[in-house]
Amino acid sequence: MLSHDARLALPDWVGAEIDATAVYRDDEARMALAVRLSALNVERGTGGPFGAAVFDAQGRLLAVGVNRVVPETSSIAHAEMMAYLLAQKHTGRARLNDGHPGITLAASGQPCCMCYGATFWAGIDTLLIGASSADVMELTDFDEGPLPADWRGELERRGIAVREGVLREAAREVLSRYAAGGGIHY
Amino acid sequence: MLSHDARLALPDWVGAEIDATAVYRDDEARMALAVRLSALNVERGTGGPFGAAVFDAQGRLLAVGVNRVVPETSSIAHAEMMAYLLAQKHTGRARLNDGHPGITLAASGQPCCMCYGATFWAGIDTLLIGASSADVMELTDFDEGPLPADWRGELERRGIAVREGVLREAAREVLSRYAAGGGIHY
Repeated sequence: MLSHDARLALPDWVGAEIDATAVYRDDEARMALAVRLSALNVERGTGGPFGAAVFDAQGRLLAVGVNRVVPETSSIAHAEMMAYLLAQKHTGRARLNDGHPGITLAASGQPCCMCYGATFWAGIDTLLIGASSADVMELTDFDEGPLPADWRGELERRGIAVREGVLREAAREVLSRYAAGGGIHY
Repeated sequence: MLSHDARLALPDWVGAEIDATAVYRDDEARMALAVRLSALNVERGTGGPFGAAVFDAQGRLLAVGVNRVVPETSSIAHAEMMAYLLAQKHTGRARLNDGHPGITLAASGQPCCMCYGATFWAGIDTLLIGASSADVMELTDFDEGPLPADWRGELERRGIAVREGVLREAAREVLSRYAAGGGIHY
């Protein structure tokens, strides 16, 4: 019997910890949420040290994501992918910015090769990055995978603005804490 | 209220059309299934013209996938991603080849930038490609996105063998038929 469908879920603590009605007015507020998600995911032991969140043009939250690879038995369940999946189901738009410009993804760590590729199709206008790929690979054993040489330019030429290093130290701190705790790397 | 989980599903016809117990002994038999899935997905109007299938070392089917972007309202729901997701849930292994070497993915079209990146983490040993990215972009309006310059070498250096052009003409034929039918491009 082949599987016909599968479900991907966030940890149960998300509903209680995240205020779904708050407005996140600037890049730093948006990244602070992504970093907080990464920290909570480590503290609760519910996945890898990565968080992400999707916002509309007004800074309202459309979805959040955390790394769920091991708990969900899915190599797809990175924080950014969870956030895209849930935001698209929530809005009913497979391209989030169809008719709704100004969508932002905040990612506590630079998207790996999979999440990078997914970013072209998800329908976002701005990508905020906390820790860099170099940070991730310096502080943990996570692999970021291969990107095009001009990874940033490829995004920008398709209309996706990129801002790197937003709350970078806070994002790095979570990665260090995870590594110090001997977290599984997946 | 934020979404906490989401489900991704194959079309209902898959169970009746695909023999889950058959053994697919060689690359051509494995690709024939992926191309057949792409053709059925076009005929039934259940998504884009792409199919994929995951096999174990003996050629037994672990999962199939077809493009479900529009029906599932998810830019993640490419054929390869559906196949990885379902194979991992089916086997209970987030890396399919953990303790089970010899996993193959057959993809009727060359993986786009997202599915390419996902291939590094899914745990496959062999990637079979039908139509090339150039074929996809020549015959349809689908965008494949940016890949590293040496995309094939990046896979091979991480232990993933690549065979291109398997049943390429058959795979191209489905893309042409889809384009001639004025299919939505997503």
